[in-house]
Amino acid sequence: MSTDALTRLHRKPDRAGDRALLDEILDEVKVGTLSTVIEGLPWSVPMLFARDGDRILIHGSTGAGALRHVAAGAPVTLTAFVLDGLVVADTLFDHSANYRSAVVRGTLDEVDVDPSHALDVLSDKLIPGRPDEVRTHTGKEMAATAVLALPILDGQWITKARSGPPGEPEDASQWTGVVPARITYDRPITATGDEPPTSVRSLVSG
Amino acid sequence: MSTDALTRLHRKPDRAGDRALLDEILDEVKVGTLSTVIEGLPWSVPMLFARDGDRILIHGSTGAGALRHVAAGAPVTLTAFVLDGLVVADTLFDHSANYRSAVVRGTLDEVDVDPSHALDVLSDKLIPGRPDEVRTHTGKEMAATAVLALPILDGQWITKARSGPPGEPEDASQWTGVVPARITYDRPITATGDEPPTSVRSLVSG
Repeated sequence: MSTDALTRLHRKPDRAGDRALLDEILDEVKVGTLSTVIEGLPWSVPMLFARDGDRILIHGSTGAGALRHVAAGAPVTLTAFVLDGLVVADTLFDHSANYRSAVVRGTLDEVDVDPSHALDVLSDKLIPGRPDEVRTHTGKEMAATAVLALPILDGQWITKARSGPPGEPEDASQWTGVVPARITYDRPITATGDEPPTSVRSLVSG
Repeated sequence: MSTDALTRLHRKPDRAGDRALLDEILDEVKVGTLSTVIEGLPWSVPMLFARDGDRILIHGSTGAGALRHVAAGAPVTLTAFVLDGLVVADTLFDHSANYRSAVVRGTLDEVDVDPSHALDVLSDKLIPGRPDEVRTHTGKEMAATAVLALPILDGQWITKARSGPPGEPEDASQWTGVVPARITYDRPITATGDEPPTSVRSLVSG
């Protein structure tokens, strides 16, 4: 089966081309799975990423040298997943999860990524507002920053989502429902200094 | 570069062969990314999975027909990622994340998976204790259950982890530290029935 056929098959008709949902997922998920092909075999690594308009910036921070192997020009997928809840049915067969997911397909691109801008975008994704609180990057830091870009192109991404309750139970007296799930940030643990900055306090209270 | 070389490169020496860490990650993460190669290109889909001893059971619930394309015999990676915290440094360059991740490589296997056992294992992963609260599976349900197994083999998996504070700041008066992150489950939303079962109440209070 061709990859185009797979794209059609796995894109839910009601969410097809839902770019707003794509952006929402890409902006919410901090770490995705980057996959490519090496010597005919699948190869995957978790990566911090951030959407920068119509492209996704990917940082090499989580894999020593990983970006050297997922080089510019490599065909990749970037998968992002949000667990929104556990769907509790009356039978195990009907248990499910509420979620939002995105898979973006494309070719990594090395050109046209300013490392200073990329560091700002990636850091702001990790901790919103943080770039405004710290000094600007040094030349040495920028030289050591490995960033690649994955363009978001029409027909090259898929969003999927499930929400809402389980189906009707066989016996309506049985408890069925949804357990909402989310990522929470707990009280910051101080390493140095006195008071966490505004960006960190916003993250925890937000 | 050969995939064996990549395995060595990306496996942190101090966590090499840390099967306990692998099991911990696989047992904690409910949905991973399954990747394979189709017509030479990477192909990925989020999948509910559960460890069953020395193999990983993968359920087709999240992708309509996805398992038909990631058929038995296909080379795959399964990637699981846990975000444990945000690492706040004094420079954007040194910001990072605390995490635990696993990538398991192998070939999907269709044989020797009893659908009834697989449904129990997968449901118990989603909501621990739930299989004991519901009726047994019908033959129709088992016939409609698509499950594949990925064996956990020596040398075919990688665990990686970061924990602890950021490095020393340039100016020790600057606030640096860690913001712990975790998945929390909120108060269940009832669809039918009165009182959530023990398994659901344990999940929320746990």
